Amino acid sequence: MERRKFLRSAGLAGVLAGASAPAIVHAQENIRWRLASSFPKSLDTLIGAAETFAKNVAESTGGKFTVTVHAAGELVPAFGVVDALQQGSIECANTAPYYFFGKDEAFAFDCAIPFGMNARQLTAWMYEGNGQKLLREFYAPYNIISLPMGNTGAQMGGWYRKEIKSVADFDGMKMRIGGFGGRVLAKLGVVSQNIPAGEIYSALEKGTIDATEFVGPHDDLKLGLHRVAPYYYYPAWWEGSAQTTLYINAKAFNGLSNEYKSIVRQAASDSHVVTQARYDARNPAALKQLISEGAKLKRLPKDVMDAAFKASREVYAELNDKNPAWKKIYADYSRFMQAQYQWTPLAEGSYDQYMAAQKL
Amino acid sequence: MERRKFLRSAGLAGVLAGASAPAIVHAQENIRWRLASSFPKSLDTLIGAAETFAKNVAESTGGKFTVTVHAAGELVPAFGVVDALQQGSIECANTAPYYFFGKDEAFAFDCAIPFGMNARQLTAWMYEGNGQKLLREFYAPYNIISLPMGNTGAQMGGWYRKEIKSVADFDGMKMRIGGFGGRVLAKLGVVSQNIPAGEIYSALEKGTIDATEFVGPHDDLKLGLHRVAPYYYYPAWWEGSAQTTLYINAKAFNGLSNEYKSIVRQAASDSHVVTQARYDARNPAALKQLISEGAKLKRLPKDVMDAAFKASREVYAELNDKNPAWKKIYADYSRFMQAQYQWTPLAEGSYDQYMAAQKL
Repeated sequence: MERRKFLRSAGLAGVLAGASAPAIVHAQENIRWRLASSFPKSLDTLIGAAETFAKNVAESTGGKFTVTVHAAGELVPAFGVVDALQQGSIECANTAPYYFFGKDEAFAFDCAIPFGMNARQLTAWMYEGNGQKLLREFYAPYNIISLPMGNTGAQMGGWYRKEIKSVADFDGMKMRIGGFGGRVLAKLGVVSQNIPAGEIYSALEKGTIDATEFVGPHDDLKLGLHRVAPYYYYPAWWEGSAQTTLYINAKAFNGLSNEYKSIVRQAASDSHVVTQARYDARNPAALKQLISEGAKLKRLPKDVMDAAFKASREVYAELNDKNPAWKKIYADYSRFMQAQYQWTPLAEGSYDQYMAAQKL
Repeated sequence: MERRKFLRSAGLAGVLAGASAPAIVHAQENIRWRLASSFPKSLDTLIGAAETFAKNVAESTGGKFTVTVHAAGELVPAFGVVDALQQGSIECANTAPYYFFGKDEAFAFDCAIPFGMNARQLTAWMYEGNGQKLLREFYAPYNIISLPMGNTGAQMGGWYRKEIKSVADFDGMKMRIGGFGGRVLAKLGVVSQNIPAGEIYSALEKGTIDATEFVGPHDDLKLGLHRVAPYYYYPAWWEGSAQTTLYINAKAFNGLSNEYKSIVRQAASDSHVVTQARYDARNPAALKQLISEGAKLKRLPKDVMDAAFKASREVYAELNDKNPAWKKIYADYSRFMQAQYQWTPLAEGSYDQYMAAQKL
């Protein structure tokens, strides 16, 4: 805060009168931001990323800079956050950017693309590769500045009423899927639809859909899907990792002091680590409970993976032809991922494989 | 800062005179900390963690709180940082805690133990399990508060002058190894020694040692070890991940305002993400260069892994018997790791394996 602003807000009389008072004088302006989440209160890890961010910012500024977190629908609908940011009616949001692939497929790079990078690789691309730089450019017309703020890790491949024997079982399947994976599943004959979390259970029970994907054990358990569709497949090839993101209206961000910008950036980084740690810490117990309650854990057959991989590359070739924003980011993303997968499987992969086979 | 302190430091005249000046008034006290790193300037990713932390703190406080980063030896020797913190002669340090397993083996939990958790699992234990809580208790007598600040990921299993055919090749081998792994290697007949980074090359060249481990491609390339010991094995079962840590003198930390404590914590979290991202982003190109310059990449034979795994469990059983601090933390660490490896291999492991086999 500039001195004149300090004097204006505290009042010179206040400064003088307060000379013996223990109240803390803050150098920065009071800021109040509203954060619209695309997630409901019940999904504690997802909305938790925003809550951790808000807590961090408040603590680092002694409560001068506060962010109020609003669950999906409170301020704007779950899928209305990009419009609200673009218009400047909210200052920030917490979302899974691939929800907006209908506006532009390139939104998905900020979250997950089928057969894309795993969580560590994506984080490396974001922080040390060109990820954030390219996305900043892409988001400019939307008045959005984005920061990574959580990653679910590799997700589960969903709940199915019937066992999957081969890729033919997907032909004609009605499946709930959020995000970009539906575009690839369509090439396998899947009729995909996005249904809000709260309605998935009854849609499966009634047979309106045959299958659904959601996240992983911790979130899936809350929905009780194993009771109506017990076959639980892994992995979600459409979400080898899924980043959740902090969106900030560019004007709101640029209006901050350098100190506040730095505090916001690091508050988001901390939430990025903490949110992924929550998923990793909570998933094992949830998986155990799901299995004890009847979930049948299975790996997707290789022919399903192969057909989906091929279909994903067809989708990307089509997008490279018709979407220049996609093409530019995809070129960099692919190069980075290719290099990662020449290294990751060696030390990291062989170590994990060995450990997974031990009696610990 | 309390108002009276503000008045004392800025001076009432200054407040009045400054009413039209653009200078920023800061609410917090000026703080100067010295950070002693256990790493040399040449290891950019390792000392970089401290530099990123210092930059973050300075930016979030408008330069009021500065941390000066000193490379190993500048203030105290590389392995002298714990003593210096305990005595309060420095405010903070950046190190690999397993260097201090000679003081107490439990230091290693804050960094790496053989056949321990991978990077994501360890981070989950630290932030969402009992990791940081248990370590805070352990470190109390050392006047240390620790925060995770970087992880190298799974490391490479080192450089060998001769090919490894079986575990028998380790018997009598003279090997440079930092940290705790030497304790396990001793059970395989290895004569282990810790040699500073700068002297490893000549020790290998002269045949004083037969093999050395260091970190991974990015750091190893700088030492040029492939020129004298071309066999490059993976993985380092003694470092399935290795966390580097921020140590803070407890009195210095507890003397901070709540705002500064929060800023320090988040500055470290950001550096934790960024440092790991740097390793992940930089290792692939370094590996390629090492191979093009003659490094022979090989996986450690299974009988080596099995013998080392068995030896590690013997070492841990001995430590459980004689070191209560170890026993307490190991019980929690093992439980957490066991649960992790019941989940990690499914979605995450199967996804990575599939991707590693594709032509990307």
